[in-house]
This record gives sequence, C-alpha cells and structure tokens, in this order.
Amino acid sequence: MIAGRAVVLLSGGLDSATAAAWAKAAGFEVAALSIDYGQRHRFELEAAGRVARALGIADHRTIAVDLRAIGGSALTDATAVPKDRVAIGADVPVTYVPARNTVFLALLTGFAEVLGATDLVIGANVQDYSGYPDCRPEFLHAFETVARLGTRAGVEGAKFTVHAPLLHLSKAGIVRFGASLNVDYAATLSCYDPPAAFVHCGRCDACRLRRAGFAEAGIPDPSRYES
Amino acid sequence: MIAGRAVVLLSGGLDSATAAAWAKAAGFEVAALSIDYGQRHRFELEAAGRVARALGIADHRTIAVDLRAIGGSALTDATAVPKDRVAIGADVPVTYVPARNTVFLALLTGFAEVLGATDLVIGANVQDYSGYPDCRPEFLHAFETVARLGTRAGVEGAKFTVHAPLLHLSKAGIVRFGASLNVDYAATLSCYDPPAAFVHCGRCDACRLRRAGFAEAGIPDPSRYES
Repeated sequence: MIAGRAVVLLSGGLDSATAAAWAKAAGFEVAALSIDYGQRHRFELEAAGRVARALGIADHRTIAVDLRAIGGSALTDATAVPKDRVAIGADVPVTYVPARNTVFLALLTGFAEVLGATDLVIGANVQDYSGYPDCRPEFLHAFETVARLGTRAGVEGAKFTVHAPLLHLSKAGIVRFGASLNVDYAATLSCYDPPAAFVHCGRCDACRLRRAGFAEAGIPDPSRYES
Repeated sequence: MIAGRAVVLLSGGLDSATAAAWAKAAGFEVAALSIDYGQRHRFELEAAGRVARALGIADHRTIAVDLRAIGGSALTDATAVPKDRVAIGADVPVTYVPARNTVFLALLTGFAEVLGATDLVIGANVQDYSGYPDCRPEFLHAFETVARLGTRAGVEGAKFTVHAPLLHLSKAGIVRFGASLNVDYAATLSCYDPPAAFVHCGRCDACRLRRAGFAEAGIPDPSRYES
C-alpha cells in the first residue's frame, strides 16, 4: 500500500538520510530535494546523491539558491567553522544559516506542489532545536499553515503535513532508528568542513555529535574521520 | 525620524516599485532583494536595478534560486505565456510559480535577519489574490508567524511584520498611489514576456492589467508596448 507521495529534504547528512528512510518505510513514494546553497561543505551534495541511490529514490533534484548573496553564516561565509567547542547547543551557533529551514521548506513546498504531494519530510531534531530556532516544533507546525495557505493545492482544500520523524530523538536515538531501517550511513556526510569527499574533520559540532551518537548507540561508525 | 530598517522584495515591476516607495515614504531605511529565479522575463532584473537607483536604495541584492529545477510554471518552463486572455484572474494561471511568495518571503526573511530588520515589504495585491493563492492576506499573516518562529531574532522576542501596502488596491489605485509618491514608472517592467529591455509585449495578463491600470487612473503610461 502506498501512503501517497512525500517530498524529503535530503542534505546528505545522517539525519536527513534517516528521515528519508522513515518515509520509505512508512509507505510513501518518496522524491528528494537537495539544496545547493553555496555551503562550504560541498561534498554533502555528493553524499545526498549517494544516499538517494542507496534508498532507491529515483526522483532526486538539486536546487541552487545562492544564500551567499545575503551572507550571515559560517557555512556560507569566510568565517571559520568552530572546532572543538566545549559546549554544543547552548546558543545559536555561527553555523546557523539565516532562516534556513524557512527557505528550505519553502522550496520543498514548491517541489511538493509540482509533484502533487502534501507530505513534507525534514530531518529536524531536538539536538539542533536547542541551537537552531527553525528546528522547533512550533516553527514546523506554523509552516504547515503557510504551505496550505500559499499553494494552489491548499486553496483547493488540501492540508500539508510537515513530518519530522526524528524531532524528539537524540543523535544516538537517530542512529539506532536508522540502523533498524538499514540506512547505509557510510553514504552520509555530516561534517561542516570536510577535508575531502566522504571524510569527516572530526572536530566541528556536526562531527562531534555524529561520533558521539554512534558511540552512545553502540553501533559501529562507518565514517572516516581525519582526526 | 527613521522607522527602522525594512527589506523589500523588488521584482522591477510596477507593484514592487510602489511598495518600495511606500516603505521609503513611511520612513524606513530600505534595503531591497530581487530574486533571479530563472524567469523568462530576465529584463525584469535590470528593471529592478533601475528602480532601486531611482528610489535611492543603496543596498540592493539579487539572489539566484533556480526554480527551473522543480518546474511547474510558464514563467520558468517552456510553456507559452498566455496572451490576449479573455478573463484574467478567474483561476490560478499557468504563470503561477509554485509556492513563489513562500520562497520569496523566506529569502526575504533571511535577508532581514542578516540586516537586523523585522519589517518585510511585498507588493502583493488583491488583483493577484484572485488568481495567486500566495497573495492572500491570511497567507501573509501566517508567514509572519513562521518568520518569528524560524529566526534568531524571533527567538529573542522580535516580531516580524509583513507589510503589503497595496493589498487592497486595484491596479489603478496602485498607479495613483505611486504617482503621489513620484514613482518613476518608466523604470519598471511588468511584462511576463518582454520582447526587449524595457519593452512590454502588451498582450500578456501583466501588460494588460498594467495598461488598464494607467488608463483607469487617468495617468499617462510611460511604458513602451510592442502591440
């Protein structure tokens, strides 16, 4: 049984790969959208392609939006990505991209509208929620209203749902959940500042959360770390 | 007195030029954002630059987002732009770009966040509202909530306002309002399918609404029309 069509934001990271696997397991016919937003960690787009292939997602598109034109983030500017931070998630980090999930969900809504889908899937989770405002449940819920009111399908009575199946999971919980769905985490890349394709720096916030997640889950980490 | 900083979506058309002039007249320090979304009517981006200069807006940026990757509109696809339509605004036209204002307002929110602004200005109006779902007041209002919940400034207590000063004006009303603000409409371009820089085809929906607006307002139309 097909639950209908869903569109998934696929960054190439651990979280979005798991969210996409959830959508497949839930019976959705899944299409994926990756965003080339001028990020420094360009290798993540290659990872997204690899993840899509591993999950058997045939319709995977990449949309370019050059957020460098507005700036404001260490992920797109010349600002250094922080390494070896003592506290992660205490405040909004410099790796925060202004209104990122608003922009990404907006693009995903456009993609959904073209495909006739009303189910949007995003790998947002509470570990980010502490630092990134646009990972909060109330934000995702408010976005559903915008998607409904701002689309042709919504005008015709359709409701949009933003699924965030990892929202209340820790990184270890995500790894466990993904492992149960047979996600190939070797295809994913979480690093904000990867030294090479499919190599993690091991020291940025994303790498440290990823590494700790595998360790805590007690699941072998297939990633290559530089340090 | 400065009312604070506002960011304006500037397409280069008649409406957004008028909305930007309103923001200036209201005392805002105005920055403008144009979106290069792969539109067929590329000349509109040149018009946006000319409008910004005419209004004395020093910070005018253009952000590229390639909506052709998701398709779905006559404005970005090979689909022909309708000409000489009998009824305008009766249904969602093929020139509707999927989730366009959601995407544009999302980018504008990112720009606002970088500049420390919480006032967003858009030239949406009821004449579009009949055809484009994302020009409806309830959509714009819902977007304010998303902008507040999805940004660092919002988390810190700021409220976002989406100003749509033309929302309840007819095209003639917009022209009259803009004329009172000394908007240089010769700098603007409304056409969906312009045959040359600053030349209007005269036959697409946008040209016909523009032309009728000037006529009804009894204000000389400075536009060049091909037919």
